[in-house]
Amino acid sequence: MNIIDIITKKKNNEELNYEELSYAFNGYLKKEIPDYQMSSLLMAIVINGMHLKETIRLTDIFLKSGDQYNLKELMDNVVDKHSTGGVGDTTTLILGPMCASLGLKMAKMSGRGLGITGGTIDKLESIPGFRVNLNKEELINQVKVIGFANCAQSDNLTPLDKVIYALRDVTGTTESIPLIASSIMSKKIALGAKDILIDVKYGSGALMKTKEDAEELSNYLKKIGAYYETNVETIIDNMSNPLSQAIGNAIEVIEAINVLRGKKCKLRDTCIEITAKLLELSENLSENEATKLATNSLDSGKALNKFMEFVSYQGGKIEEVYLSDKRIEVKAKHDGVIKNVDALGAAKLAAKLGASKMTLDDTIDYSVGIYLKKVKGDKVQKDESLMTLYVNDYNIQLNNEDFEFIEY
Amino acid sequence: MNIIDIITKKKNNEELNYEELSYAFNGYLKKEIPDYQMSSLLMAIVINGMHLKETIRLTDIFLKSGDQYNLKELMDNVVDKHSTGGVGDTTTLILGPMCASLGLKMAKMSGRGLGITGGTIDKLESIPGFRVNLNKEELINQVKVIGFANCAQSDNLTPLDKVIYALRDVTGTTESIPLIASSIMSKKIALGAKDILIDVKYGSGALMKTKEDAEELSNYLKKIGAYYETNVETIIDNMSNPLSQAIGNAIEVIEAINVLRGKKCKLRDTCIEITAKLLELSENLSENEATKLATNSLDSGKALNKFMEFVSYQGGKIEEVYLSDKRIEVKAKHDGVIKNVDALGAAKLAAKLGASKMTLDDTIDYSVGIYLKKVKGDKVQKDESLMTLYVNDYNIQLNNEDFEFIEY
Repeated sequence: MNIIDIITKKKNNEELNYEELSYAFNGYLKKEIPDYQMSSLLMAIVINGMHLKETIRLTDIFLKSGDQYNLKELMDNVVDKHSTGGVGDTTTLILGPMCASLGLKMAKMSGRGLGITGGTIDKLESIPGFRVNLNKEELINQVKVIGFANCAQSDNLTPLDKVIYALRDVTGTTESIPLIASSIMSKKIALGAKDILIDVKYGSGALMKTKEDAEELSNYLKKIGAYYETNVETIIDNMSNPLSQAIGNAIEVIEAINVLRGKKCKLRDTCIEITAKLLELSENLSENEATKLATNSLDSGKALNKFMEFVSYQGGKIEEVYLSDKRIEVKAKHDGVIKNVDALGAAKLAAKLGASKMTLDDTIDYSVGIYLKKVKGDKVQKDESLMTLYVNDYNIQLNNEDFEFIEY
Repeated sequence: MNIIDIITKKKNNEELNYEELSYAFNGYLKKEIPDYQMSSLLMAIVINGMHLKETIRLTDIFLKSGDQYNLKELMDNVVDKHSTGGVGDTTTLILGPMCASLGLKMAKMSGRGLGITGGTIDKLESIPGFRVNLNKEELINQVKVIGFANCAQSDNLTPLDKVIYALRDVTGTTESIPLIASSIMSKKIALGAKDILIDVKYGSGALMKTKEDAEELSNYLKKIGAYYETNVETIIDNMSNPLSQAIGNAIEVIEAINVLRGKKCKLRDTCIEITAKLLELSENLSENEATKLATNSLDSGKALNKFMEFVSYQGGKIEEVYLSDKRIEVKAKHDGVIKNVDALGAAKLAAKLGASKMTLDDTIDYSVGIYLKKVKGDKVQKDESLMTLYVNDYNIQLNNEDFEFIEY
């Protein structure tokens, strides 16, 4: 077998078999195939695509490149949840405790943010003392005992996905449904939940730009799940608007606590919906029963207690979470109604404030962020505050363009 | 400007402007852009293509990356000739001396072979003592004095094309009309002939597989020439069969001498056609007049004399050219008529005998090769010789598949 022939086949839009994909991808992991050949193959895959069969082959190669946790064989009711990313998406920190308080088990591995994308691990690190690295034994034990754990991706889980993801990030080859599907599903199958809910977001703030793309990705995810006898359900969700009013790190943890304390908002509704779906899948409940249970987990304070238990189990001191005391109120220039809050624009402003890394060498300021006081549909009067910015320097240069994401 | 944005534009099939192409390609030459980003961009160009305007921009960037000879400003009647490669293509060694004997000037830079492709420089190196490296001054002086020089590509000419060509070779990105056109034309324009004839070959032994591709490449070459006020004419030629009966290195030099001595064959006809076209272009002659002059240059022995002058001017001792004395006659297994001689198959057999490098570390045996005694349309009787193999080891393992290229 020869890597040039494999690249040429995909360039000519031909299907690659298991042996060919394994030769190329495992060869890359073993450093026998250089970066420049893999990036050429990845671009051919991005442009010409991959059939479902090829995508399952690639998923399997990713999966078998590392450790497998087989959680569903170790305990009952193991569920998992994934979101394809969004702005202000702090759902994991809410629904993980909700599920655990209702008897489900969730071992969640999350990523870090890069560019304008936020990462759950960065948010957790805004909690002083919080340990984001758990080994296999620690993770399994914690989930058995308290029902929920949330840690960084293990280095031993799908190591091939890690090196490919890093290469895709710097070679313009991120936008590909088969590559995204293989990446997500190999990690999920390696953990081994019985039922998985995947929130496929589309819109300006998301990886999928259109509903059609989100539907195609959803179809791939379900069929790959079926191949591994794992039940995958999806929610297809427009993410043109931020998912919550808080965009940053500490500020999103605080917003999660607000919801766990009973705050009524879109973020609460989303968490109830996802938790209910997971209960329906895992416990065979009706939608109505499941929704009642999910709602009650919030209203009873059980989910909040579970959250506190989870944070302290991983060493976090929630009372020490710190939000910058340097605040700027952004005021409305005229009366109006909020027509749109563009997620991508909001994320860019948060990044400018220092809430995410723009390059691998940057550091994150956990204490900065945005709190949207007005959301889509709200009325606003001239000089009323549209949002609060939490900044680390009052001299930060802000101009009109930074606020164009909010239309009123 | 940002390389990921540039790669993404081409991935999305958008046009790249001069600044974007220069940022990517000159950045690569300066080693500011790594291999893996350039190979990703090259694959996007190969699959999505480039418009003529983009191709001219890329040609200009290649051209300006190095030295420019401006030959047409230094002397009159400067012509150039290029072939997109073929098996048994030794035309340069015949028509260069033909043109020079008729008053035209030709400064030819040639390449080395790799894989199954033969290179004129390898053929010239089969002449003991022949100097393939000439500097700018030597090249210009030799062409002024004797009218013809043939040397290896200068390192200072289009250095960007060299590094891109090397990367394309190992990343499955060779088959691209815009990239091939930029590569050829940047080198031709850097030398600066007034009139250029390009022999665009298609078929199994050539880079272009179909006539349509050859025509599209031809169109690009002419239009790029027009942009630089250089007259480019093309001959589109089927190369499914070897161009001559000799395939190898020393054996092709000997076949060139045979044609210069008056041998009547397809190779002679091709050389007369190309030389006549160059005369037509440069001297404004009619086809009839030009053909008569070209034919006469062979029949009068003037071209042969010029060839001898050229070889000795570059230090070569033609009388020392050596062909292996270990010979194998390949005999017909049955009576028949030669239906086809596949160029690619013949080249593979020559490579197996040791006539070309399969990897950069291989060495070439100049003394080996194939001489086809029967060509397409010839009758053959059982046990009659189809071809002579010149080998360096009688124990070479040959099997039936090695000879499937000749059908009768």
